[in-house]
Amino acid sequence: MKKELHFERAEFLARLEAVKKEMAKRGIDILLLSEPANHNYLTGFDAYSFYTPQMVLVALTHDEPIWMGRLMDRVSATMTTYLADENIRAYPDKYVQSKVLSPYNFMAEVVKEVGGEKARIGVEMGGYYYSARAHADLVRALPLAEFVDADVLVNWIRIVKSPAEIALMRQAGRITDAMMQRAIDTIEPGVRECDIAAAVYHQSMAGTPEFGGTYACAPPCLCIGERAIAPHAAWTDERLPASTTVNLELFGNRHRYQVQLSRSIAVGKPSSAYLNLSDVVLEGLNAGLESVRPGRTCSEVAGVFRQTLARHGFEKEARIGYSIGVGFPPAIGERTASLREGDETVLRTGMCFHMMTGLWLDKTGITITQSFVVTESGHESLTSMPRKLFVK
Amino acid sequence: MKKELHFERAEFLARLEAVKKEMAKRGIDILLLSEPANHNYLTGFDAYSFYTPQMVLVALTHDEPIWMGRLMDRVSATMTTYLADENIRAYPDKYVQSKVLSPYNFMAEVVKEVGGEKARIGVEMGGYYYSARAHADLVRALPLAEFVDADVLVNWIRIVKSPAEIALMRQAGRITDAMMQRAIDTIEPGVRECDIAAAVYHQSMAGTPEFGGTYACAPPCLCIGERAIAPHAAWTDERLPASTTVNLELFGNRHRYQVQLSRSIAVGKPSSAYLNLSDVVLEGLNAGLESVRPGRTCSEVAGVFRQTLARHGFEKEARIGYSIGVGFPPAIGERTASLREGDETVLRTGMCFHMMTGLWLDKTGITITQSFVVTESGHESLTSMPRKLFVK
Repeated sequence: MKKELHFERAEFLARLEAVKKEMAKRGIDILLLSEPANHNYLTGFDAYSFYTPQMVLVALTHDEPIWMGRLMDRVSATMTTYLADENIRAYPDKYVQSKVLSPYNFMAEVVKEVGGEKARIGVEMGGYYYSARAHADLVRALPLAEFVDADVLVNWIRIVKSPAEIALMRQAGRITDAMMQRAIDTIEPGVRECDIAAAVYHQSMAGTPEFGGTYACAPPCLCIGERAIAPHAAWTDERLPASTTVNLELFGNRHRYQVQLSRSIAVGKPSSAYLNLSDVVLEGLNAGLESVRPGRTCSEVAGVFRQTLARHGFEKEARIGYSIGVGFPPAIGERTASLREGDETVLRTGMCFHMMTGLWLDKTGITITQSFVVTESGHESLTSMPRKLFVK
Repeated sequence: MKKELHFERAEFLARLEAVKKEMAKRGIDILLLSEPANHNYLTGFDAYSFYTPQMVLVALTHDEPIWMGRLMDRVSATMTTYLADENIRAYPDKYVQSKVLSPYNFMAEVVKEVGGEKARIGVEMGGYYYSARAHADLVRALPLAEFVDADVLVNWIRIVKSPAEIALMRQAGRITDAMMQRAIDTIEPGVRECDIAAAVYHQSMAGTPEFGGTYACAPPCLCIGERAIAPHAAWTDERLPASTTVNLELFGNRHRYQVQLSRSIAVGKPSSAYLNLSDVVLEGLNAGLESVRPGRTCSEVAGVFRQTLARHGFEKEARIGYSIGVGFPPAIGERTASLREGDETVLRTGMCFHMMTGLWLDKTGITITQSFVVTESGHESLTSMPRKLFVK
């Protein structure tokens, strides 16, 4: 069977080494990772299979990680990871959504096999796929082990991207640009909202002539008219009126690497108040971006944006951005650094962020944003769509 | 602001009543629901916002449910639920992915407010959005309360669909049919796999001329050639060869109600072995469907399928289906009844299932399946795509 690996084996081994170093530092013998993005990062694994229990085990005493999941997904593990066959362990289907059997008991046996019966085991307490029951089952099955919270341990290692990862982020950005252009081309009075969504989704997979895309970590946000103030609302079947505002947040994805982009499109002539709002947000966004450089903190960058807005009498309640990279639904961002005041994360070359400078007011909202990678001298934009209010 | 509700208030109240009745039976004072499908079922709430902590509280002593979530999603709660304003509670953004603040402390305060400090509290231990940390934080914040596992309590009430829900399932089925037809039309030698995905996604949102669709709970499965044996693999950028097999599993979604459909499409002339395999699966699928009626058990239906396959020397390791209905990513199915031997769930009118009779063998796979609703006299198909192997 042909292997589908998007990174060199040496890169996977370097990532593993960094994780093991951090484990040793914290006195963790075994990591039981539940987050699909971390499975992908450390082994290459890529399948939509994490809706049934799936974990990757990293033991200080075991060379390779061990993938553990459902029997029918074993073939995906063989196809998409660099792991040796003995490090791919699958439980039979009778464990799936059973009232009596827990896949975590199966996984606990693998822990024992690598000498982990009395180990100090790190788990991702806040992970999307580490349920209260998963934890309870593992603790019950390994009564002599000590469990410690190692949530986002791997995520903080992921936060600095390698050149090969940045190459994928750039490809994702090209897909995202194509999606936004397609949306702008599609938007006009009389078009159904769902048909705008259809066009955007089509482009997200068709990608570019050179390469295609894959499913994003979240559906696009398509917030129109009165619903422009609801950031995460679903779209409707309604037709666009002659005059309205469309706020789009789009996610292009290339081999699980994701780049986000928001733009507002005014259908019909925008009010002068809205034009003014757009000027303010753009000034803040550009000032924020210009302040990005290695050594600055997330808090400082957020402060620059806040101060610019404040000069014009506006404020934004939410954080103005977050770290981005490899991901699976439903994760928006990496759950590590946020661009907000109080976050003292120091920017380093290779970190990627979505500067999410959307503003939602009482009656209207505007979203003009920029994803970027931190470079030695400042930042490089991951999309090339002009930063402006589009008018159709 | 215009309300976007897809059911009558009376239907929401009847659902709530059924949940409260079950709570009383189990001695549960308060339910803290983490599953987005249950939020939608009990309040109407619909937004892609559950990637930050969000819960719906049901207290025996409180008339309406209480939605608790992120401040920026409050407007979606106002728009999509029938709840009174005082039953919509939002935490500020500083709680989001913070190292020091937990949204669950905010929620614990609401529990106290409705008299729940010493209550018996049901939580969804196995829910996708009830992390080990969520549970630990709530237990810490409510030390006098007793926590009990009420996982899938609401799901088991959801399992029998109302006429209004079945109407949405039929609409979802029409979207799914349109997606499959579009895929069959698109598939031909030379087409990139990602462009098949693009066409399918486009149709999933464009839906029909009368109504559009929305995002599904999972990406389509598009398993081609050698990868036809990997049920949940991602697609590639490769072009279809002159002769291959395409296994599709597609999910049409209407207002969060989802209907699934799988078909295999042979590109070029299929081998006689493959044609034989398709005959066997079809015979099993049709026999299974014919055996469906109220009063039969899931186990009996699965047995009919297994026996038919066994007569031809085949067996299927995995369950042959699962309950379907309202859902959000990443849930495939309702996590309740499975069509498999040993599941003694008795079929009732209004239950909906995907009979997932896909077979994955060593070198090939075939997927021809049927979603249906149990009727008084047997079953009604939720899609109308012919049950057969398609050849292009």
